[in-house]
Amino acid sequence: MPPYRPAEPGMSLADVDTPSLLLDMDAFEQNLATMAAALEGSDARLRGHAKAHKCSEIAKRQIASGAVGVCCQKVSEAAAMVAGGVENVLVTNQIVDPAKLGRLCELTKQADVAVLCDDAAAIPLLNAAAENAAITLNVLVEVDVGAGRCGVEPGDAVAVLAKEVDAAKGLHFAGLQAYHGSAQHLVSAADRKSAIAKTIEKVKASKAALAEVGLDRDWVTGAGTGSFPNERDSGLYTEVQAGSFAFMDADYATIEGDDGNPFATFNHALFLWTTVISAPRAGEAFLDVGHKGHSKDSGLATVAELDGIEVDGQSDEHTKLSLGHNAKPLTIGEKVKLIPGHVDPTFNLHDWVVCVRDDKVEDVWRIDARGPGY
Amino acid sequence: MPPYRPAEPGMSLADVDTPSLLLDMDAFEQNLATMAAALEGSDARLRGHAKAHKCSEIAKRQIASGAVGVCCQKVSEAAAMVAGGVENVLVTNQIVDPAKLGRLCELTKQADVAVLCDDAAAIPLLNAAAENAAITLNVLVEVDVGAGRCGVEPGDAVAVLAKEVDAAKGLHFAGLQAYHGSAQHLVSAADRKSAIAKTIEKVKASKAALAEVGLDRDWVTGAGTGSFPNERDSGLYTEVQAGSFAFMDADYATIEGDDGNPFATFNHALFLWTTVISAPRAGEAFLDVGHKGHSKDSGLATVAELDGIEVDGQSDEHTKLSLGHNAKPLTIGEKVKLIPGHVDPTFNLHDWVVCVRDDKVEDVWRIDARGPGY
Repeated sequence: MPPYRPAEPGMSLADVDTPSLLLDMDAFEQNLATMAAALEGSDARLRGHAKAHKCSEIAKRQIASGAVGVCCQKVSEAAAMVAGGVENVLVTNQIVDPAKLGRLCELTKQADVAVLCDDAAAIPLLNAAAENAAITLNVLVEVDVGAGRCGVEPGDAVAVLAKEVDAAKGLHFAGLQAYHGSAQHLVSAADRKSAIAKTIEKVKASKAALAEVGLDRDWVTGAGTGSFPNERDSGLYTEVQAGSFAFMDADYATIEGDDGNPFATFNHALFLWTTVISAPRAGEAFLDVGHKGHSKDSGLATVAELDGIEVDGQSDEHTKLSLGHNAKPLTIGEKVKLIPGHVDPTFNLHDWVVCVRDDKVEDVWRIDARGPGY
Repeated sequence: MPPYRPAEPGMSLADVDTPSLLLDMDAFEQNLATMAAALEGSDARLRGHAKAHKCSEIAKRQIASGAVGVCCQKVSEAAAMVAGGVENVLVTNQIVDPAKLGRLCELTKQADVAVLCDDAAAIPLLNAAAENAAITLNVLVEVDVGAGRCGVEPGDAVAVLAKEVDAAKGLHFAGLQAYHGSAQHLVSAADRKSAIAKTIEKVKASKAALAEVGLDRDWVTGAGTGSFPNERDSGLYTEVQAGSFAFMDADYATIEGDDGNPFATFNHALFLWTTVISAPRAGEAFLDVGHKGHSKDSGLATVAELDGIEVDGQSDEHTKLSLGHNAKPLTIGEKVKLIPGHVDPTFNLHDWVVCVRDDKVEDVWRIDARGPGY
C-alpha cells in the first residue's frame, strides 16, 4: 500500500488534508534564485543538502538552479537520489558497515559518488568494498573544524590520514569536508563570522599539511545556511552545503543578519497545514499534529499569518494554541498554517510535500529518501 | 519503491542493518502475558493503543492475547489496521474534517468503529458523514478528566453533549472516553494513584449525569501503562488503552512502582540497533542515528547492556556516547543497542520493526500505519 496522499494537483489549498507539509513554490523558487545570485562570481558552488528535504524532486530543482549535485548523510538517501535522477552525490558522513559500503560502491556505476573518512580503522573497510566492486571510490577526509563531532584534528593529522587513504588501491583522496554545524545557529552575525574565521584557519592549516605531502586538492566542501557568505569569501571553499536556505524554519528566523535585524535573506517556504480539532476552553485550541508530524527538537512551531495566536505546547498527537485577547477566535475544523521549528527532522516525518502556488496545489512530491537512513 | 528493508528472517542480529528498531520477541510476549494476567477476572479488557506502534501485526498479537481491539488516534491509522485484519477500532481523537469522516464511515462497513466528540459544533459534521454513508456511527464523548487537553467538563456538560449526539439521526452515543495522559508519567506510584482517584470521581459524576437523562452506557475507555491498575480496580472502566506496556522505554523506566522501586512490571522489549561510525577523541563515540531514527521529545535514549557508557547528546544524524574510565572501548563498526527514550514517536520514524529471538531475526514487520496521521 503506497502511503496516503493528502492532495492532488489542481486542488484548492483549503481542501488539502492535514497535517501536511506545504511548499510555497514562489518563496522556494525565490530562495533558490537568491542563493544562485549570492554564489555567482565566487569560487564556491552550491551542493544543496538533501538531508534537509530527502526529496529528489527538490534536489533536481536545486541542480537546475546551479547546484553541482547534492549531499546526503546516508547511503539509503544517496540511493534514492540516484534513483530519482541525481548524478552527483557526496555522502557527508562516515560509512563503515560492509553492506552499506557495498551499496555505496554500486552507486558509483550510475553517478559521481564520494564519501567521508575520519579514522584509519575505516580505510580497510572502504577499500575492500571498492576493490570488491572493482571501482575507485572518492574519499574526502573530514576535519573537525570546531564542532566537536566527527572529524580528525586539523593540520598534520589530516595529511597522515589522507596519505593512508590515497595509498589504498581502491581509494582516491579527493579533498576535505570542513563543516561547522553549530556555528550555523549562533544568533549574532559577528559570532558566526568569528567562528567561521577559526574554521577557515583550520582548513588553511590542513591544506598546508596536505601540500607538504603532495596531496593538496581543490575540493573543500562545507558551510550551511547560517554562515555560507563567510566560507564563500574564504577563497578556500569550492562548495557550500546549505540545506535550510530553501525552506527556512522558526529556529533560523531567530538568528540575526549582518545588520542586527532578523536573518531575512531567505523566505519561509515550508509550512505545516493543520486543522483545529478541539477548543474546549476559552483562549485554547488544539491542532491535529504532534510529535509525529512536527519535530520539536529545536523548539516548537510558530503560527503563520494569524495575529495574537501562539503555539503553547506539543504532545504526541496535538499542538496546543494559546489565543490572546485580541486574536480572532478559531472554529472547529478551521485550518491553520504553522512554520516548523526545524526543517530537517520535520520533512522526515512526512511522505509527501504538497507544492502550492496562489492557494492551488501545483504538484505533490514524494519525500523519497525519507526514513531513519541506512 | 518500497522502503528499504534492513533485515530478512533467518539473519543473525549482528548482520541487521542500522539504525533499526528491534523487537525482543521473548520480552514482548511476556509483556502481553503479564497484561493479560493483570486484567484477568476484572471488568476491564485491554484495547491496546496502536498509536504506540502503528503496526497491524503487533495489534493482532495483542488481540490474540485477549485485547478487544485497538485504539488509534487517526483515521489513516484506523484504515491501516482494518486493512491489516483488525476488526474493532476506536479512534480516540476528535475527527472533524468531512473528507476524513467520509473515510472513517466507510471503515464501519468492514469493522466495528467508533470515534470521539467533545464539541457540539462537530455533531453536524459527524452526522452528515454518517448519513451520507448510510450508516450509524458510534460516538463516545470525551471527558476532560484532568489532563487539560481535549474533552468536555465532567458531569452535566457530558450529559448535554451526549443527548445532542444521540439525537442526531446518524449517530449513536456509545459511552465515555476518560483518559488522563499526564498522570501516566508521574514518578511516584502514590501520585499516580491520587491523580487517578480524582479521574475516577469525574467519571462517576459524568455517569450519574448521564443516568439522569437515560443515557448511561457501560463503555468507559481510558487508562495507560503508568496507571492502569487504578482504572482496572475502579469498577467503572471497561477498557484500558495501554500502549507502552508491550515495549517500555527509558521514560517509563524512570517511574516508580508501588514498592518505590523502578516500575518493573514490564520488560524492555524495544531497542534501537546502531553502529559506531566515528570515535575521534578518547572517551567519545558517535552512533549512526539521530533525530530521524530516535525521537528525543521525552529525553535521550539510554545504552543497553554496556556498563559505563552513556548517551550524551543527539543531533540530526548522530548520537554521542560518553565512555567512562572503566568502560570497554568501542571500535569503529561495532553495533550498540539503545533503549528509546519514548516509544511512540520513535516507532513512527521507522518503516519496519525487526523481530528478534535468540539473536536471530524471526520476522520483519511493516509499521504499516506510520506517518503524520491523517
